[in-house]
Amino acid sequence: MGIHTYFQSLTDLERIIRCPGKFKFQEHSVAEHSWKVVQYAKTLADIEESHGVLVNWKKLYEITSSHDYGEIFIGDIKTPVKHYSLELRAMLQQVEEGMVAHFIDGHIPEEFKPIFRRQLREGKDDSVEGRILEVADKLDQIYEAFAELQKGNTEKEFVFMYRSALIKIKGIQLHCVDYFLEQILPDLVSEGSRSPIDIEQITKDALAS
Amino acid sequence: MGIHTYFQSLTDLERIIRCPGKFKFQEHSVAEHSWKVVQYAKTLADIEESHGVLVNWKKLYEITSSHDYGEIFIGDIKTPVKHYSLELRAMLQQVEEGMVAHFIDGHIPEEFKPIFRRQLREGKDDSVEGRILEVADKLDQIYEAFAELQKGNTEKEFVFMYRSALIKIKGIQLHCVDYFLEQILPDLVSEGSRSPIDIEQITKDALAS
Amino acid sequence: MGIHTYFQSLTDLERIIRCPGKFKFQEHSVAEHSWKVVQYAKTLADIEESHGVLVNWKKLYEITSSHDYGEIFIGDIKTPVKHYSLELRAMLQQVEEGMVAHFIDGHIPEEFKPIFRRQLREGKDDSVEGRILEVADKLDQIYEAFAELQKGNTEKEFVFMYRSALIKIKGIQLHCVDYFLEQILPDLVSEGSRSPIDIEQITKDALAS
Amino acid sequence: MGIHTYFQSLTDLERIIRCPGKFKFQEHSVAEHSWKVVQYAKTLADIEESHGVLVNWKKLYEITSSHDYGEIFIGDIKTPVKHYSLELRAMLQQVEEGMVAHFIDGHIPEEFKPIFRRQLREGKDDSVEGRILEVADKLDQIYEAFAELQKGNTEKEFVFMYRSALIKIKGIQLHCVDYFLEQILPDLVSEGSRSPIDIEQITKDALAS
Amino acid sequence: MGIHTYFQSLTDLERIIRCPGKFKFQEHSVAEHSWKVVQYAKTLADIEESHGVLVNWKKLYEITSSHDYGEIFIGDIKTPVKHYSLELRAMLQQVEEGMVAHFIDGHIPEEFKPIFRRQLREGKDDSVEGRILEVADKLDQIYEAFAELQKGNTEKEFVFMYRSALIKIKGIQLHCVDYFLEQILPDLVSEGSRSPIDIEQITKDALAS
Amino acid sequence: MGIHTYFQSLTDLERIIRCPGKFKFQEHSVAEHSWKVVQYAKTLADIEESHGVLVNWKKLYEITSSHDYGEIFIGDIKTPVKHYSLELRAMLQQVEEGMVAHFIDGHIPEEFKPIFRRQLREGKDDSVEGRILEVADKLDQIYEAFAELQKGNTEKEFVFMYRSALIKIKGIQLHCVDYFLEQILPDLVSEGSRSPIDIEQITKDALAS
Repeated sequence: MGIHTYFQSLTDLERIIRCPGKFKFQEHSVAEHSWKVVQYAKTLADIEESHGVLVNWKKLYEITSSHDYGEIFIGDIKTPVKHYSLELRAMLQQVEEGMVAHFIDGHIPEEFKPIFRRQLREGKDDSVEGRILEVADKLDQIYEAFAELQKGNTEKEFVFMYRSALIKIKGIQLHCVDYFLEQILPDLVSEGSRSPIDIEQITKDALAS
Repeated sequence: MGIHTYFQSLTDLERIIRCPGKFKFQEHSVAEHSWKVVQYAKTLADIEESHGVLVNWKKLYEITSSHDYGEIFIGDIKTPVKHYSLELRAMLQQVEEGMVAHFIDGHIPEEFKPIFRRQLREGKDDSVEGRILEVADKLDQIYEAFAELQKGNTEKEFVFMYRSALIKIKGIQLHCVDYFLEQILPDLVSEGSRSPIDIEQITKDALAS
Repeated sequence: MGIHTYFQSLTDLERIIRCPGKFKFQEHSVAEHSWKVVQYAKTLADIEESHGVLVNWKKLYEITSSHDYGEIFIGDIKTPVKHYSLELRAMLQQVEEGMVAHFIDGHIPEEFKPIFRRQLREGKDDSVEGRILEVADKLDQIYEAFAELQKGNTEKEFVFMYRSALIKIKGIQLHCVDYFLEQILPDLVSEGSRSPIDIEQITKDALAS
Repeated sequence: MGIHTYFQSLTDLERIIRCPGKFKFQEHSVAEHSWKVVQYAKTLADIEESHGVLVNWKKLYEITSSHDYGEIFIGDIKTPVKHYSLELRAMLQQVEEGMVAHFIDGHIPEEFKPIFRRQLREGKDDSVEGRILEVADKLDQIYEAFAELQKGNTEKEFVFMYRSALIKIKGIQLHCVDYFLEQILPDLVSEGSRSPIDIEQITKDALAS
Repeated sequence: MGIHTYFQSLTDLERIIRCPGKFKFQEHSVAEHSWKVVQYAKTLADIEESHGVLVNWKKLYEITSSHDYGEIFIGDIKTPVKHYSLELRAMLQQVEEGMVAHFIDGHIPEEFKPIFRRQLREGKDDSVEGRILEVADKLDQIYEAFAELQKGNTEKEFVFMYRSALIKIKGIQLHCVDYFLEQILPDLVSEGSRSPIDIEQITKDALAS
Repeated sequence: MGIHTYFQSLTDLERIIRCPGKFKFQEHSVAEHSWKVVQYAKTLADIEESHGVLVNWKKLYEITSSHDYGEIFIGDIKTPVKHYSLELRAMLQQVEEGMVAHFIDGHIPEEFKPIFRRQLREGKDDSVEGRILEVADKLDQIYEAFAELQKGNTEKEFVFMYRSALIKIKGIQLHCVDYFLEQILPDLVSEGSRSPIDIEQITKDALAS
């Protein structure tokens, strides 16, 4: 039924809550997460540019804004499930891609199909833009987990989320990663110093691992 | 570390919302759904007994109360995903079982392991109790979808949920299914007569399909 | 109008919130509480059976799953009200029973009336099953109050709830009570050690009282 | 320990939801209801004064603002329970008064005790102010039920609430009741004309009963 | 179209949340805040009367119950905006008054227009009643901010709210202010002693400033 | 203190709800709205490009993702207030810009200040990108209002929102506006045909005005 179906579907991501099942002081929808990722990526790309790196802003726009669109079809499957086995992970990825392809075939007008196929693919490739997306996505995981730890949430999942995102980020080669580790992370850690949970130690352990 | 871990985990099912992503006038947690399934199954089993069928209440208790416990580990994966392919479905089932097994191995004391392995397995087998569970589970899908249709929710997913649950139920050989189709369903349909959506027609089509 | 009215009424217990009026980090509906009671009771009964006690699973199923159904008619009346005077308590019990009886008379088909009268009565009698239900009900009170204390909720009502449930449980003669006090409670207390509230001391006081 | 305890307790009425158990498109806390009653009563008293009736504003202030304070102790007990028997109703009233008295004895400083005893008593007596409070209280019941009926809520309880409040109001001798029936109610009914529920007919029936 | 429009509009204040944007453990609607202000003002006026001050209860009723009605038209504009410049503040005040006047002109029947113009004006003048309203309004700001600080909310805005309300109150000449500072505030501060935030120090600083 | 302050502030837009005060079946945060605007703008820009128009994607990225960031400081001021007078509107705009400038001065490191000044300015200028942003912003207003009208929400504000957004859009010279009016709007209108509100007529009136 055309672009209308696509536009109308966007609101569904306002009703998928991240990290389902665990107690949270504050909930975040996938739409809210997606917007924050768009925002982080913008500043991360600015940092890259300031080091002379060429950024393709059109590509960055497309992959960051749409990076979780596929969750409309499969929901926010729990991370441990996604990482259960390489085989399952590949199959879930394939299902998501199949459902997105099926949606494009059935709803998107012919002239836009190639555009949507490009936009709604998995964007985390090895390009500068793909790596910026990866960092931005993990950055939101850090901020969401940090806000819970800071308020004294004792669910171990948030320690795991914080720690694994930090480990992922520090392994990515980008100027903005250096900037984050040196200029942003210390501010964040120092703000968490009144928490009953030792965020500084968790951070040190993750960076040393 | 022991039964405490199991008891404490139950509250996680209060925070997994059924049918994520779609607009709903009323949300239901998996814990709430589970309780309603326990209740329906009790009356369905009473109907079977009144026809002279022997019901194993201990088994019924175990499989109805725990039937969605595995969602603690994998979340409420969207139905279309589950039915994407037989291969994926089998693999997801295997993941869920693997994670439940891993939980039992790591947390349940030795003397209770056999009990938990029996209780937390998939309960929808061909026994009377397994079939009652299947009917009770689908019955709640009917009630949840009906309440949305009755209030004028135009999301097609609720027509699909209502219709597919009805088709599933009518194919199961049980006295309580006859009772439901003859004594309960007509009351429900007549109550939906003021809805802007033609629930009666949807019902007729499903029963005739 | 028949069993439909009963089935449809179950969803009302999803909208009655336990412990109304007090600030809570996490809310629980009566339906969610009821499901957790069903689950605890199952494991408590397994413990009894492992000590050679005979459990009537049909009775246990009936009384645990329906034990708060009457709240559909009277709501979650505050505990201090219930305990205001023996006379008032008896009268409230009588009202609840009267409204349940009135519901059965008006809505349940003739052939099921005896079954529903048995199922929807007060189940906390002196039988093994009645005592297991009492323990399971108080166990959920402990877990709900503990989760608030652990997060630093300073409402005195949660100390009172935790303490009074513990005192009630320790006075009940069951193998599963011994198991709870020896194997489960220490794990729970040790998990609460980071709370600004001294849960260990409250526990000791309650056990010594 | 003093007035602080009283001031701090007020926030508890923000967490008691009116009409628990039934599906509602919009929830109202007892605090919100109380504020609307204060507002209605003000205009109703203005109407009385414009007919030359003398209004004691201090008394009106005291009884409208505090009229549901006792629900802090007993919660929002369901209306059918309150009306179950005259005996029970009297006893519940007595419990509420007893708990309020107990609160005043234990927390309010000596010099304010007489003031609080006067303010926190049941205010719906036969005085002009007592009758205005009764009308204002029922007026909010009408507005809350009307808003549900207008949106197509098919729960019978809202028809009952709307109807019984209207019947109660029309039996009270006040100029403002005439004004309400002649000048306000017709506007309200005409606004409900697009609802799938025949609000006009329900209104006519109630006024004729 | 008449008083109905006014009565019906009241419910809009149930959906305007105070202090938007900042993380809060507990939200408060403007309607709930308004009710608490009515309640505080009552006791504050009782204290004034006990010192022989004459209170105009009709005026107090009118200005406390309606003091935030104008937010129906302009929303809960953030405090820093209101205080950005005297010019902006005056203009926003003027807009609010213009919209209230426009509402009265268009909806309130001729005979009530003078009454509504008096009631819906800004009530915080230099009269005893105006000063009591100012204290009551700030008192709720203290209680709302205190409840967040006590639970460990680290948003600086709540320290600012608590502190600025305290400074405002202590500058107002009323017997009830003395009573609050001497009899109520110490109880509140001592209750906050377990918070990770040093409420006592913040209080001392504010009182000394 | 640096970029951390900026990143952390983003979550505040998850807690500012659009269209405060009015009854809504579904709430939307400013963060969710912002993400949908980013998404619409992407497809609108694709349409422009398909007609040979040159789009500056970096600029589009910056102005769409940040277009409501200023609401962190001033909240979601009600539309009627914004449009009360040209003078007030200019002054509010000036306040917002002043607060954004103050934030940048106080928190953003020297080397990023020029970038943030460019990104956080008002983006709705006469450029292609500025006009696309205007259309995307109004498009979300249409979708949000439509979803309410479709469910039978009788608040007049949603008719006003739907209508005024449509009128605004049709006055903007862009290929994507033609596409929207010819290809997307008819699908939307036809989907609203079962609503009790005559969306088709409202649409026709708006397009003809």
